[in-house]
Amino acid sequence: MLKPHFEVNSLGHLVVGGADAVELAEEFGTPLYVMDEIRIRENYRKFRRAFTRRREEIHICYALKANSNSAVVKILQEEGAGADVSSENELRLSLEMGIPGNSMVFNGNFKSTEELELAIKNDVVINVDNLQELKVIDSLAEKLKTRARIGFRVNPDVRTPTHPYIATGLRESKFGFDMSSGQALAAYRAAEGMENVEVIGVHAHIGSQILDPSPFEEEAEKLMRFVGTLKEELGITLKFIDFGGGVGIPYRPGERELDIEEVAERMISKVEQIEEDKKLEKHALFFEPGRYIVGDAGVLLARVGYVKERPGMPVWISVDAGMNALLRPALYGAYHHIELANKMNHTNDTLTNIAGPLCESGDFLGKERMLPRAERGDLAVIFDVGAYGLAMSNQHTAKPRPAMVLVRNGKSEIIRERETFEDLTRLDRIPTWLR
Amino acid sequence: MLKPHFEVNSLGHLVVGGADAVELAEEFGTPLYVMDEIRIRENYRKFRRAFTRRREEIHICYALKANSNSAVVKILQEEGAGADVSSENELRLSLEMGIPGNSMVFNGNFKSTEELELAIKNDVVINVDNLQELKVIDSLAEKLKTRARIGFRVNPDVRTPTHPYIATGLRESKFGFDMSSGQALAAYRAAEGMENVEVIGVHAHIGSQILDPSPFEEEAEKLMRFVGTLKEELGITLKFIDFGGGVGIPYRPGERELDIEEVAERMISKVEQIEEDKKLEKHALFFEPGRYIVGDAGVLLARVGYVKERPGMPVWISVDAGMNALLRPALYGAYHHIELANKMNHTNDTLTNIAGPLCESGDFLGKERMLPRAERGDLAVIFDVGAYGLAMSNQHTAKPRPAMVLVRNGKSEIIRERETFEDLTRLDRIPTWLR
Repeated sequence: MLKPHFEVNSLGHLVVGGADAVELAEEFGTPLYVMDEIRIRENYRKFRRAFTRRREEIHICYALKANSNSAVVKILQEEGAGADVSSENELRLSLEMGIPGNSMVFNGNFKSTEELELAIKNDVVINVDNLQELKVIDSLAEKLKTRARIGFRVNPDVRTPTHPYIATGLRESKFGFDMSSGQALAAYRAAEGMENVEVIGVHAHIGSQILDPSPFEEEAEKLMRFVGTLKEELGITLKFIDFGGGVGIPYRPGERELDIEEVAERMISKVEQIEEDKKLEKHALFFEPGRYIVGDAGVLLARVGYVKERPGMPVWISVDAGMNALLRPALYGAYHHIELANKMNHTNDTLTNIAGPLCESGDFLGKERMLPRAERGDLAVIFDVGAYGLAMSNQHTAKPRPAMVLVRNGKSEIIRERETFEDLTRLDRIPTWLR
Repeated sequence: MLKPHFEVNSLGHLVVGGADAVELAEEFGTPLYVMDEIRIRENYRKFRRAFTRRREEIHICYALKANSNSAVVKILQEEGAGADVSSENELRLSLEMGIPGNSMVFNGNFKSTEELELAIKNDVVINVDNLQELKVIDSLAEKLKTRARIGFRVNPDVRTPTHPYIATGLRESKFGFDMSSGQALAAYRAAEGMENVEVIGVHAHIGSQILDPSPFEEEAEKLMRFVGTLKEELGITLKFIDFGGGVGIPYRPGERELDIEEVAERMISKVEQIEEDKKLEKHALFFEPGRYIVGDAGVLLARVGYVKERPGMPVWISVDAGMNALLRPALYGAYHHIELANKMNHTNDTLTNIAGPLCESGDFLGKERMLPRAERGDLAVIFDVGAYGLAMSNQHTAKPRPAMVLVRNGKSEIIRERETFEDLTRLDRIPTWLR
């Protein structure tokens, strides 16, 4: 049932990255995010290898939005990853962690003037979302006496079976240029007349948490046909094709892993077939994995405080992490697998609802799960929270956000301190007339 | 269309608390929360008056979870409000702002030992959620050589037409003791034998954003009948009845305001009728309004960056605030009214989707709204965000959280500074082995 990078020790405790989860919770307190460094590196290498063994010029840009903790970014920098950034702070953090600007792509439907200027100065590839942004970039690059390297975000209209909030490649999406109506082609035409932009690529992102290779193959085909059209109709030759992210991970027990080798095989075959058919030069291929790299490398440990039994209903247990610490169950109805980390060798014989600590009914982490009979002081573990976990946490009801610890072969160190009362109120000010 | 505390000036700009919204955005930047001090005070006084004119011993405990900005809490302290707190930090902040502990109630299904100790030390009334918590309180009070003042959270099973996430008074809820099965009565019986707790009240909270007086009347009736049963069966006499919060506000244009006078009239009539019928002594009545006090006193100003037109579809505009700054539309599907604050005198002739800046399709503030034709640089205003706005904001994609400004008769001062890159990374640490 457990993924292979976890173990259970002789005490029946969960072991993460060689460290006993119960000891981690005692040493660092709860709620606690735990990231497994080795697993991050394994996931990255697995993803990278699937593509590089089939093709030269593969660029893996880690999507910081999944988890932009400094140490996590540092690990990926050591691995040689580039960065997919979608805000000024993600860009600045990537620079600080040693990722060069020319290994980054900057995405998003709202890039402020300041953000664009920072990106241009650092030679970051900008995937342009709309024509107004294109004009802003052209004039900024002129001011900076340089040429901005850009691609256009296009919508290949690939339907993917995912939550509507994270299906991003549709015609009606807020992102990018529609391909079918000719808007995408028109964008390249518009950029041709501009002196301060160098149009070198195309970008798409068809959604998130996709567990089927077919949409990626369809994306590759649609993007490559578009690249062919660009050459035929406008004589434009591109240097890169950015396929975005979206590679999913299994969250539910028994859910099948997406075979990344098959994804790579089908995408690259399609790319090379069309490059050959249309007599195109070879393009550099960009990928923007986030969840695939860090998702299953993280768990959240939460202390059971109270156990409430009611006849004929699941037992309610209240733990010290809720939708404040992990928003995905409440926001997306996402499933995260839950166990009792100190009772991994017990029988799961009790139907249990797992509640967070907030005064809100939506604040639960899971419902109707089979767990061992829980007691006050037990340690719940929520799996697969390395992506969009701490990154989307908030301070609802003034709860401090959790700490995060990094484990590696049994060693552990804090990579994010727990917030304090002072952190919550640090930026508050009392106006002069109320003092 | 606008609520009466807003005006439009001769420039066609929205005026909030006497201040031109366009000028506020220029001075303080965007995205910007703006709170109107006078409106907060008006709302509080209106709520308070509805009850106090009909009854002595009314305690209004402001629910900090709605908005726990220090200055907002300070305003309510000046008004004489108590506090409904649901975490250690809300309790500490209330104390710092001058609200005495004995004017507070502490609610929630997970109160840590440290939180309970702080509450007992400060003579805060604790509404106990479950029997384990009761035991913890009893032993803490013994250790502290005092008696803890408590009530029990009970579920009167009042069905309310609201979002399932915020309907909290149901039997199957994670909160409190079920009344119908006898669990609630059993809790009072259990507390009778404890030396270190003083059982003085009962608490219920039937949900949030309720716009119909009937559920409140039903709540009053069910709670009072329970109080009668307590006296008849156990001989227990209570001092307070805490009706929780849940009073809603109109979010949609044309939505009818809940008549707080009618709520008060029907609740208090019911209370007094049953007190008389059952020959009960008069109880102090607690109320915990949050949204009603601060909800419509806040707006969010967001700059329009990009406008995207596609044939046959609504215009997409991208603004610099999204689900990071205001989670309610994405989380609850909540409606927040939106206008262009610099074009209040223009005709709303354009069907518009309003997107936030995040790389996620769920990141929108409103869809298919009629707005004036938007241009880059326009200022969008999102109404009724004083409650559960900044309080639930996060840093998704490493976006800094917005600033908040307080306005009063045209004066304005920052009450929460905008976050910086340093605020985002302040707590990150690089482990020794990665340095």
